[in-house]
Amino acid sequence: MTRWTGVATCSVIDLMHYFAEPFAQGAPEITLLPPERVDDPRAVDFVLTFNPADDTFTPYPNLRAVFSAGAGTDAIMGCPSLPDVPVHRVEDPDQALQMAGFAAFHVVWHHRRMGDFLAAQNRHDWARRVGDQSPTLRRIGVMGYGLMGRAIANGLAALGYRVTTLSRKRPDPATRGISHMTTDQIDAFLGQTDILINVLPLTPQTTGLLAAPLFAALPQGAALIQLGRGAHLVENDLIAALDSGHLSGASLDVFDTEPLSASSPLWDHPGIFVTPHVASTPQHRAVVENVRRGLGKLDTPVGLQPASASRAT
Amino acid sequence: MTRWTGVATCSVIDLMHYFAEPFAQGAPEITLLPPERVDDPRAVDFVLTFNPADDTFTPYPNLRAVFSAGAGTDAIMGCPSLPDVPVHRVEDPDQALQMAGFAAFHVVWHHRRMGDFLAAQNRHDWARRVGDQSPTLRRIGVMGYGLMGRAIANGLAALGYRVTTLSRKRPDPATRGISHMTTDQIDAFLGQTDILINVLPLTPQTTGLLAAPLFAALPQGAALIQLGRGAHLVENDLIAALDSGHLSGASLDVFDTEPLSASSPLWDHPGIFVTPHVASTPQHRAVVENVRRGLGKLDTPVGLQPASASRAT
Repeated sequence: MTRWTGVATCSVIDLMHYFAEPFAQGAPEITLLPPERVDDPRAVDFVLTFNPADDTFTPYPNLRAVFSAGAGTDAIMGCPSLPDVPVHRVEDPDQALQMAGFAAFHVVWHHRRMGDFLAAQNRHDWARRVGDQSPTLRRIGVMGYGLMGRAIANGLAALGYRVTTLSRKRPDPATRGISHMTTDQIDAFLGQTDILINVLPLTPQTTGLLAAPLFAALPQGAALIQLGRGAHLVENDLIAALDSGHLSGASLDVFDTEPLSASSPLWDHPGIFVTPHVASTPQHRAVVENVRRGLGKLDTPVGLQPASASRAT
Repeated sequence: MTRWTGVATCSVIDLMHYFAEPFAQGAPEITLLPPERVDDPRAVDFVLTFNPADDTFTPYPNLRAVFSAGAGTDAIMGCPSLPDVPVHRVEDPDQALQMAGFAAFHVVWHHRRMGDFLAAQNRHDWARRVGDQSPTLRRIGVMGYGLMGRAIANGLAALGYRVTTLSRKRPDPATRGISHMTTDQIDAFLGQTDILINVLPLTPQTTGLLAAPLFAALPQGAALIQLGRGAHLVENDLIAALDSGHLSGASLDVFDTEPLSASSPLWDHPGIFVTPHVASTPQHRAVVENVRRGLGKLDTPVGLQPASASRAT
């Protein structure tokens, strides 16, 4: 069995705390180390990270792969010391279902104005209001149709909501009960979206997309559920769209700066539900399996593996 | 076309307010009247009601059917003046989906402790907590497997939750991805239920079912989502189970007395989410269609319709 050595390092999460045990249990052929415990940097085959520091990859001349500990790779792709090696993101169906449940919660939160019921409960007020409950009364738009977007769309369709997805290519085949539009149709997509769910990856094209022009293209009273990356959103534009009454509410799980500053105006805005980046995380075992799978693809004959010379096999 | 005359009357809802227009638009062959506008009580073919008064049915000697304006018929079945005629409840697939979305919201509310995030937001506190998000970490039990229970189970299964239903008979065929148990297995069912959802009809057998013995049979930390009827629940037993820490929370949409008294201890209990009987309502057009369908079954030859003699046809 080929043996591998990896470094776990991240500027915001103590990855060894979470992953030492799952790797020891699930992947005995892999030695996972924090950077300070690496004796020979030439023996490091891969890095597991989420938010690398600028020089995270510099010490390791023989890196053969980089693995994200999460669903996104945007911070890794933007790291100046990233070498020309494959970057793998985790694709965890369980994480996608976590996202789907979280999105469904916030769809109902906005559609059924559940916060008003909590406020009424505080007042001991039987503030009954019926007639607006049908899921057919809110059109859901899901931006992004990868593993996350699919799970969200499927879950909401099972709850009777009318779901349209937006992606670069039309899925083939289309998913039963779900409508699909492509990015060239974004204006039409936004114009028919009462509750917009963002699960796009962060790229140069999507950075700052959730801003005044996009909000203006949504119907009066629309709500935003932001589950992508903080940099998708121009926070001040959102506040302006809520204050003008054009948008009715927003759920934000990701922020430009995390943790969100205690002085951020987002905390106290009556239309905003803030959560601390908790919508979903990959299962530890999915991260381990993802690393094993990615390394398995590298498991080519020894003659093609210059970096393996220094490793025990 | 056979013409019909019906009376709309209810001790808690002004049914004419909601249904005069939908019947006029959707069922021109039906004359729907409030009791005070009935000239000839012998010409009344049916009553549309939800909570009848004790003597609601007494004035009408030729009644041929009674229709509930909601999904339940328990108040009608318990009415002393109810004659021996068919009682129809509304079966509205849209209402079942409303229920499914509402149930999914409360499952995530309890599973993900969303109330803690709202409280943290109030404190501007980035109280991040991850690792407990997988839907596989909560076993859902749905008591009742009619139209409502099916929609709830399907929706939660689509969100990745493990769902077991409880009903008198095992559904045939079983539903893919959902486990089924029968009422003789209730102890085993309760013992493996982390979040219990009640959508049973109210019958003598189910009255007071949600009480201390049932709560004791649930695992430590279980939560209750009560969407059935108020009389299913012994409120003081619920408060005791929450106060002892055996149950972790409850969502209550129905109550023994509605509106819930402003002095009820349920309003202020930290583990309870109170909503004012808003989980679902039938679509008006579904009520109209239900009445038409039920009357259609009566549309037998004139010789068998003694009450029709006094009507224009």
